[in-house]
Amino acid sequence: MKKILPFSKEKVLGIIKKYPTPFHIYDEMAIRKNARRFLKAFSILEGFKEYFAVKATPNPYILKILHEEGFGVDCSSLPELLMSEKVGIRGEEIMFTSNDTPAIEYQKAKQLGAIINLDDISHIEFLEKATGIPNVICLRFNPGTARKGTDIIGKPEEAKYGLTREQIFEAYKILKSKGAKRFGLHTMIISNELNEDYFIETARMLFELAVEVYQKTGIKLEFINLGGGIGIPYKLEDKPVSYENIARGVKNAYNNIIVKNNLHPVKIFMECGRLITGTYGYLVTRVLHLKHTYKNFVGTDACMANLMRPAIYGAYHHVTVLGKENDPYNNVYDVTGSLCENNDKFAINRKLPEIERGDILVIHDAGAHGFAMGFNYNGKLRSAELLLREDGSVAQIRRAETVEDYFATLDFAGVKNFK
Amino acid sequence: MKKILPFSKEKVLGIIKKYPTPFHIYDEMAIRKNARRFLKAFSILEGFKEYFAVKATPNPYILKILHEEGFGVDCSSLPELLMSEKVGIRGEEIMFTSNDTPAIEYQKAKQLGAIINLDDISHIEFLEKATGIPNVICLRFNPGTARKGTDIIGKPEEAKYGLTREQIFEAYKILKSKGAKRFGLHTMIISNELNEDYFIETARMLFELAVEVYQKTGIKLEFINLGGGIGIPYKLEDKPVSYENIARGVKNAYNNIIVKNNLHPVKIFMECGRLITGTYGYLVTRVLHLKHTYKNFVGTDACMANLMRPAIYGAYHHVTVLGKENDPYNNVYDVTGSLCENNDKFAINRKLPEIERGDILVIHDAGAHGFAMGFNYNGKLRSAELLLREDGSVAQIRRAETVEDYFATLDFAGVKNFK
Repeated sequence: MKKILPFSKEKVLGIIKKYPTPFHIYDEMAIRKNARRFLKAFSILEGFKEYFAVKATPNPYILKILHEEGFGVDCSSLPELLMSEKVGIRGEEIMFTSNDTPAIEYQKAKQLGAIINLDDISHIEFLEKATGIPNVICLRFNPGTARKGTDIIGKPEEAKYGLTREQIFEAYKILKSKGAKRFGLHTMIISNELNEDYFIETARMLFELAVEVYQKTGIKLEFINLGGGIGIPYKLEDKPVSYENIARGVKNAYNNIIVKNNLHPVKIFMECGRLITGTYGYLVTRVLHLKHTYKNFVGTDACMANLMRPAIYGAYHHVTVLGKENDPYNNVYDVTGSLCENNDKFAINRKLPEIERGDILVIHDAGAHGFAMGFNYNGKLRSAELLLREDGSVAQIRRAETVEDYFATLDFAGVKNFK
Repeated sequence: MKKILPFSKEKVLGIIKKYPTPFHIYDEMAIRKNARRFLKAFSILEGFKEYFAVKATPNPYILKILHEEGFGVDCSSLPELLMSEKVGIRGEEIMFTSNDTPAIEYQKAKQLGAIINLDDISHIEFLEKATGIPNVICLRFNPGTARKGTDIIGKPEEAKYGLTREQIFEAYKILKSKGAKRFGLHTMIISNELNEDYFIETARMLFELAVEVYQKTGIKLEFINLGGGIGIPYKLEDKPVSYENIARGVKNAYNNIIVKNNLHPVKIFMECGRLITGTYGYLVTRVLHLKHTYKNFVGTDACMANLMRPAIYGAYHHVTVLGKENDPYNNVYDVTGSLCENNDKFAINRKLPEIERGDILVIHDAGAHGFAMGFNYNGKLRSAELLLREDGSVAQIRRAETVEDYFATLDFAGVKNFK
């Protein structure tokens, strides 16, 4: 899949005058268009709702844009709940999907009226004690060896998430007996998967389980959350999924299982993150150094603090040298960051045009799990996030960290007096 | 090696009343004793100086303690330089070892009078332009295929660090011609290595290179920095290195090469981090949940935000269940954090005593590259750092992050007005 940039080199040179590199920049128009295309495709499903996984791009401006487009949010922690609240997202527009959850997080989720998604049968008692059993409740299913996972999320039977099949039935009974009235079912067993059939298969599995839940407990589920995990085409040869194909496949499974078993209507939810913003965010960085030793290295002013996926997953991110798109790709480089950690490389043995000091590199597909995963190792500071607006203007939606931020939890006066 | 704790369960219960879990706690007495033992062993080497690698434990109290014990610091970035300056460490007590360095960092290092360690021959010109060539200068050597690396730091010939053999000779000549007067040589090619011979071999390699440097350039090196990378016994079966053995081996190599070639005196430096603090820091966390699905999971109130090594390196960290040290280790658990990332596990298939909700777990050897590598993924907040003083009192040396810290770079008023 060709990688097209929403900005020219000249545009970026203009942006850099105001906002120095490195920064993440998100393409608002592309995010909105994709969100509309996504919702349109899945609107053939009963009561469809997408809960954007905040962890992918935890920026309130992005949440606000997606909320305007009709998305809810999936939160995994108290700070994510608080961010959503500040953006004006409340009630059942929030799904709270956590694991190993502290009581305070359940209390906040309940206070916001969020749909609470329980990760374990033991959490029923824990939740009841923390805040009482809400009217609406969801359970996360882990199919165990019945399904395969991926490298990132692991095999379901080894994964820490969700309830087993038998626990699901028991948990619904307990929840019903404790006063819950409306029920949902959820799973999330894959990450960054491009095989459309996988998601249809997941829907079928959950629909069949819904039938069994009804048979064993008498509970008609109100909604089924198919989870997220749809991948994006990081590599040029990757083929993006067709939203329409997945939606049609899920619809067929719904008709064949839910409708046939007289369980219609069941609302269908999803919680995609990467698919919604990943492709439409870019890490823009400048070349500080060229180094020629046993290999050729391009040293940028970004590092793992800005994008960790290549270092920890060996993930591929496409790199464009701005203004040299049409030059021959005759040079082989490692594109590195400045961390004292050898895996701090954005690309290894990558064919690229000849690079000079000062060149601007765009690292693609950094719109999800990019800024979000940044750390401060080696005292590195996290960068700014910018938004390319539909009218071509640029808004700063998160300022870059400063040394003062890095020192915020330290008390240097105390150090001075320390004996 | 048996893992001994410097605190009892009762002591920790007392600490938790004031400082809720999770937190890192460092044992001041043990750090000081180890520092003294380390310096004593290596004092047989000419002009020995240890520059503590700030990145391992970037806390100003720890730096102050180590400085009191006679250590310098090795900094890798501007924030680390600034932290050292605030602690009162300046001049040649600082070694500045960076790579892919921005000009502003060289300027600050020069202003502080730090020893600048150049990572590449091209940095000579870059440094000259940024701030001028200082009197004292060091070069980082990369031996390429002549030496083997480790999984973490990679093969030297693929690593982004340092100058080749031929570049070393050329770089010294250029630096001399540009007015540098005092010269050092450095390497760092291994991480977390317990084989003593490896470090002696590294010293020998550098000493031989020093002879060659003299022969080819007429430059007598003033110091040689052997780097760090000495490992600690994470696993019970690991044998800690003997400081004395390494010091003796280096001394022999020095006599056989440096002295024999009439290059004596050359000062010997090191830049250990992990070895200095790693063993003496503990991550203390409470069990929030027990979960039994396809495996048995112990859910703690810590996560990758507090300690990332198991998740990204598959690293082993020993776990003690406080107060149950003598119970039978009859249960097999995955000890997990609360991140929506399946590799957020502190231990996998670990035999432990039977664990109950509320138990306190101590995760050992978290004193280096522990807090330092924490991120805010999933909106998780980084925890406090405490210091167990020699008199048994406990001082907070870094407060826990708050949601306000997490939101510090965001402008929610802007979000409200955002159209």
